[in-house]
Amino acid sequence: MHDQTRKTPDEIFQYAHTHDVAWMSQNTNHLPAYKAVRDAIKQSVQEQEYNKYPIASGLPGLPEAIAQDIGMPDYKVLVTAGGIEGIYILARALLRPDDEVITSDPSFFMIHKVMGLTGARCTNLPVYDPPCKYRIEQVKEAITPKTRMLLLIDPLNPTGAGYTQDEVRAFSELARDHDLLILDDVTYRDFAEGHFETTRWAPERTFIAYSFSKSCGMAGMRIGALAGPKELMDKVIPYNTNDLSVNVVAQRGALAALQTKKEWFPKTLKICRDNQRRIRRAVRKVPGASLPVFPSQANMFCIDIGATGVDPDLVEQRMLFDHDVFIRSGNYVSKQFGSRFIRASFSVPSAMARRFAKAFPEVMEGLRRKESPPPAADSGQGAGPAPPSPV
Amino acid sequence: MHDQTRKTPDEIFQYAHTHDVAWMSQNTNHLPAYKAVRDAIKQSVQEQEYNKYPIASGLPGLPEAIAQDIGMPDYKVLVTAGGIEGIYILARALLRPDDEVITSDPSFFMIHKVMGLTGARCTNLPVYDPPCKYRIEQVKEAITPKTRMLLLIDPLNPTGAGYTQDEVRAFSELARDHDLLILDDVTYRDFAEGHFETTRWAPERTFIAYSFSKSCGMAGMRIGALAGPKELMDKVIPYNTNDLSVNVVAQRGALAALQTKKEWFPKTLKICRDNQRRIRRAVRKVPGASLPVFPSQANMFCIDIGATGVDPDLVEQRMLFDHDVFIRSGNYVSKQFGSRFIRASFSVPSAMARRFAKAFPEVMEGLRRKESPPPAADSGQGAGPAPPSPV
Repeated sequence: MHDQTRKTPDEIFQYAHTHDVAWMSQNTNHLPAYKAVRDAIKQSVQEQEYNKYPIASGLPGLPEAIAQDIGMPDYKVLVTAGGIEGIYILARALLRPDDEVITSDPSFFMIHKVMGLTGARCTNLPVYDPPCKYRIEQVKEAITPKTRMLLLIDPLNPTGAGYTQDEVRAFSELARDHDLLILDDVTYRDFAEGHFETTRWAPERTFIAYSFSKSCGMAGMRIGALAGPKELMDKVIPYNTNDLSVNVVAQRGALAALQTKKEWFPKTLKICRDNQRRIRRAVRKVPGASLPVFPSQANMFCIDIGATGVDPDLVEQRMLFDHDVFIRSGNYVSKQFGSRFIRASFSVPSAMARRFAKAFPEVMEGLRRKESPPPAADSGQGAGPAPPSPV
Repeated sequence: MHDQTRKTPDEIFQYAHTHDVAWMSQNTNHLPAYKAVRDAIKQSVQEQEYNKYPIASGLPGLPEAIAQDIGMPDYKVLVTAGGIEGIYILARALLRPDDEVITSDPSFFMIHKVMGLTGARCTNLPVYDPPCKYRIEQVKEAITPKTRMLLLIDPLNPTGAGYTQDEVRAFSELARDHDLLILDDVTYRDFAEGHFETTRWAPERTFIAYSFSKSCGMAGMRIGALAGPKELMDKVIPYNTNDLSVNVVAQRGALAALQTKKEWFPKTLKICRDNQRRIRRAVRKVPGASLPVFPSQANMFCIDIGATGVDPDLVEQRMLFDHDVFIRSGNYVSKQFGSRFIRASFSVPSAMARRFAKAFPEVMEGLRRKESPPPAADSGQGAGPAPPSPV
């Protein structure tokens, strides 16, 4: 049907944006709108509130609601145009050339990118193999006199692994012992069965990266926040990129989301968990495919296909172009392990997860026939050499 | 009625945001919504497009429409969360400590702030007195071996003065002779009777700072752009704060605005010009008050009250708290000349400009009685010492 040549990232994204795809590629949330959120957005538009600049310190009540949501009412909250922008501002303010930041691979590399702009270096500790997250000893060994910050993404994108209370306490103590800042990225916390912030043990050195994109379904609104203790935030805020504040429509939606999350989020969570199980059943049909983490503590996980010999870039493309299911190759979120997995998110209507479940075994079967044994003759389609083992 | 103590900036903004004020303080546009713009916004919300991340390079058609609007189809356009964010990114990418940037006073100081974050120094050349904008000789004399960039805000906020074709050409040539970058901030260009960008004579060194806040009435949407030649933009874009793109609802509105601006902007302009004349009539009723620039080429101008001895901070407060008319003291936009003027913008419904016209003579009369002669005894309410003369 479709041609089998590789598409560029732009072609892939362009296709996805112009077709009715099952959007399981970016950990976004495509469940039907939360009425209170959409009503707040609509009312703001109707009242032409967007004619005015918003209040610079944020929509009244929104910073307070965020502080409340993370259980740190005394933290200072900077509302930003997306969670990543808060990290950009933080990095610019506090990182210096040759600073080291403890980070993982796989990870959400956009964070590493904005940190790298300062000249700081990310460690990219290998965490793909179980337990699919930092190990305490691994972090401890990675600390050097140059280490300035620990990036804790919890639950971790893309593996879906979450940290236990003991682990979070241990990281907090390590950070205190070595005088490190902590960036605790809690983007996916609402999806976790239990979640613990480093604020509990190291509030004086913790920044919280906060997002409305995932649990609240507002990725396209570009709204998030950075929160931290006042003394530290006072060093960060001069580098704010939003002195004229953040889109007021987005802020209205965000505030409504926080005010009503308890009412609608349980349903979101139930759909996510059902979808996880649905995907697991599909994965079990594919010889050599497996789930490194189950259940995921986030709204995504990795599907390991390393043992199948199939190239995840091709899985991504065939799922998209032949089945209108948009997932991501591991290469999107891992430099060292990208050839071993795909990432799928599941905060989507059940019908879309079912579309995935039907398509995935077919695509894998088709590609396996093409690729092995023997490996396909045309270069670029093999799974490549085995990735390095984790340290 | 109201107490006469000075209010803090927060109290002022809080009051304005919670009362039905004539919003003439921030050069924003409060005319009835442009239907095509609001329809595009509503449709995007209705379709829950905000669940997804927008395409990173911008909503298809929007960068192209911006390039078209500035007449530079080959320029590369970065859509940003507000025009100021584009300048923030540009400054971070290209300015270094001890670089000098030619800037004026009065000006929109938020630009100077984001430039200053890099360690660069702004010259703040005095331009309050006629011609109320840079003079060619003044700029020429200010250039040193450290000068890296010329900031041209044209028309100039707050004076409303615009530059002639000959002047823009002369600045372009100066920039070329001294190998300067030009940041041509065209935020208010749609309001000008004639407008010329430096792209015409120095396209290889011009960045255009572009806004949807003013002519398009979208300040609260926080959307703008930075445009420039590809080679220069390629140095800037790594510092983008919007790698996940900009609020999609805002982008939909912006695209609709550009596609329909020709239909509705003439009416906006006519209202602005009528309001300018209405304000002029009110100013003429106040002995000692005058308009340094008339007609303004933007949607705001300065009202000089230096000869009245009245403190513009008090004018701002009495206009707001006694008459629900929100204008700005000159101190908001000038370090050297702020005690000599207020700034009023007039892209508001005629009824609001009439409210201003009625209130202003009353407020000035009331404050003049209080303040002179002799000056009010309570400290802090006098007009302060005469400002320094321009060089």
